[in-house]
Amino acid sequence: MASVQDVLSGNRLSLARLLSQIENDTSAGRAALSDLFPHTGNAHLIGVTGAPGTGKSSLVNQLAHYYRHPPENLSPKSVAIVAIDPSSPFSGGAVLGDRVRMRDLAGDPGVFIRSMASRGSLGGLARTTSGVVQAFDATGYEVVLIETVGAGQAEVDIARLAHTTLVVEAPGLGDDIQAIKAGILEIADILVVNKADRPGVENTERALRNMLNLAHPIKRVYRHHGTLEVVPSAIAVPTESESIWIPAIQKTVATDGTGIQELGDLITQHKEHLENTGDWESRERTRLSAELDDLLHAALVSCWEDTLPAGRYQEVFDQLIERVISPRQAVNALLNGTQDK
Amino acid sequence: MASVQDVLSGNRLSLARLLSQIENDTSAGRAALSDLFPHTGNAHLIGVTGAPGTGKSSLVNQLAHYYRHPPENLSPKSVAIVAIDPSSPFSGGAVLGDRVRMRDLAGDPGVFIRSMASRGSLGGLARTTSGVVQAFDATGYEVVLIETVGAGQAEVDIARLAHTTLVVEAPGLGDDIQAIKAGILEIADILVVNKADRPGVENTERALRNMLNLAHPIKRVYRHHGTLEVVPSAIAVPTESESIWIPAIQKTVATDGTGIQELGDLITQHKEHLENTGDWESRERTRLSAELDDLLHAALVSCWEDTLPAGRYQEVFDQLIERVISPRQAVNALLNGTQDK
Repeated sequence: MASVQDVLSGNRLSLARLLSQIENDTSAGRAALSDLFPHTGNAHLIGVTGAPGTGKSSLVNQLAHYYRHPPENLSPKSVAIVAIDPSSPFSGGAVLGDRVRMRDLAGDPGVFIRSMASRGSLGGLARTTSGVVQAFDATGYEVVLIETVGAGQAEVDIARLAHTTLVVEAPGLGDDIQAIKAGILEIADILVVNKADRPGVENTERALRNMLNLAHPIKRVYRHHGTLEVVPSAIAVPTESESIWIPAIQKTVATDGTGIQELGDLITQHKEHLENTGDWESRERTRLSAELDDLLHAALVSCWEDTLPAGRYQEVFDQLIERVISPRQAVNALLNGTQDK
Repeated sequence: MASVQDVLSGNRLSLARLLSQIENDTSAGRAALSDLFPHTGNAHLIGVTGAPGTGKSSLVNQLAHYYRHPPENLSPKSVAIVAIDPSSPFSGGAVLGDRVRMRDLAGDPGVFIRSMASRGSLGGLARTTSGVVQAFDATGYEVVLIETVGAGQAEVDIARLAHTTLVVEAPGLGDDIQAIKAGILEIADILVVNKADRPGVENTERALRNMLNLAHPIKRVYRHHGTLEVVPSAIAVPTESESIWIPAIQKTVATDGTGIQELGDLITQHKEHLENTGDWESRERTRLSAELDDLLHAALVSCWEDTLPAGRYQEVFDQLIERVISPRQAVNALLNGTQDK
């Protein structure tokens, strides 16, 4: 097992080994995460999500390049990329085929790229991604880019890890269908229209702008004790006097770098907005609260299962299947031996 | 409160009142559900899911009409429609505007239509939908059509309620984008290409057929103790000798009834397949198991919260926010007073 000291001192091989421990949820990985946790809280976590075909991976590469080789007035930042390839439950294969990264990133000691597979368990993916991101944060990576396919609740959960969330769209991919993926759009801090050199870019931009106009005031989904709640951001943002961040729209062409510097500027503006309004802290609280509740629920179920007499669950379940007792009566029977309604 | 006897004797007003109690999760509603539960297990639950614009509601109306006025060799069946309008977290309004139902359905005593709003809590929606469906089942409705917008995990959960799941597509809605919604497609027992009189129908059908070919052997997502697991249907189906149901594709034009009788035939064939293979029972088990686990988890969290000293959660959470303890140490502190890793 890689020592936490080796990881904190910047040993890449130790870090890679630790990431595997975290991904496999080993006890050593869990212990290391507890040791690393006090060192977290410094990285800027940037989520990048969008459908396949939007050029999301190229965009992430360009952003990494931007942070490594920024405009003259800025200093370079170290960058970690967490690329999540959800194995499609339908095809059994990876949705994303192209994991080939730009050559200058691969040779750069200030860049660390980690691809993760989902292995079929959506909740588990959010949990291990959180651990991997914490490891990068503790190790001193200043920017962590978290790349997910925007296709469902799991991606929304993962995007909720981030301080700044980019939702990537592209022309010609069926805008009205994409637009209904409200769960993804409403988490966007910045909407990126990539492949902006393609026909139809005006339509995509107009559709997004219409969505944004519809969405005023913007709402956010918060997780509290394991349930999802929709809260107008006017409530979620603590002080009345604070300004509301209206999601920006930025056109890019990731293949040639067009719009990347402007996108980098917008990301910096969003970070400053978060810091100036207290939203940075409130997002940290939301994130840690969600993580705590998730771990708590898993632990509660696990504890309860440990105390259950062998065969008891099956016995009650059989009565349920026979419709002798109702689901709520089954819960009561399992929790306290009674079958009250 | 409507009496369970009134509901069972077919009093529509009592049923409507009970459905409201169930939707509001009142104690009277819970008690009534336990009384009704022994009477459930007879209805054929048919899920109908698809993106807005696919003509899903018209299709559901036509199917209801088909069951009320079947071909000569079949007898009419009573039909309940549960239409779920998820309030979009983005726009704050209903995604579906058109809840107007055909006139002959509205005046038919053998038809009961219930629209439900999601009210922001996804888990809660699946729970109350399950209750509403049980009420219809217990009251003797022979077919329950459950209509949802296919847009995320909640819809997958709701579709899992059904014995037979129809996924509705339509030409010209961005097939490659729809195709990636694997979570929806892989729950389909029958794929309906509605609006089949429109241009592009061959492309939609071809795209769906390609997806189906990719997906051999078909996989299904099962929920076990609150986590999602992907299981090849070859494992999920109990006996080796049993035939596998390959999702059928049916073209329809819901506005004029084209293909509805053929779709009705396919639904009957699927029901017979389920009954002949033992899949009917295994779907019942999966469904009741998921419902039991869901209720159990909610009850476990609620019990634990009741025993927690006031202020304890906040105290531990504050230490977490200050990064004095890690998330797992916080869980240990909340569950048993220690802060071991």
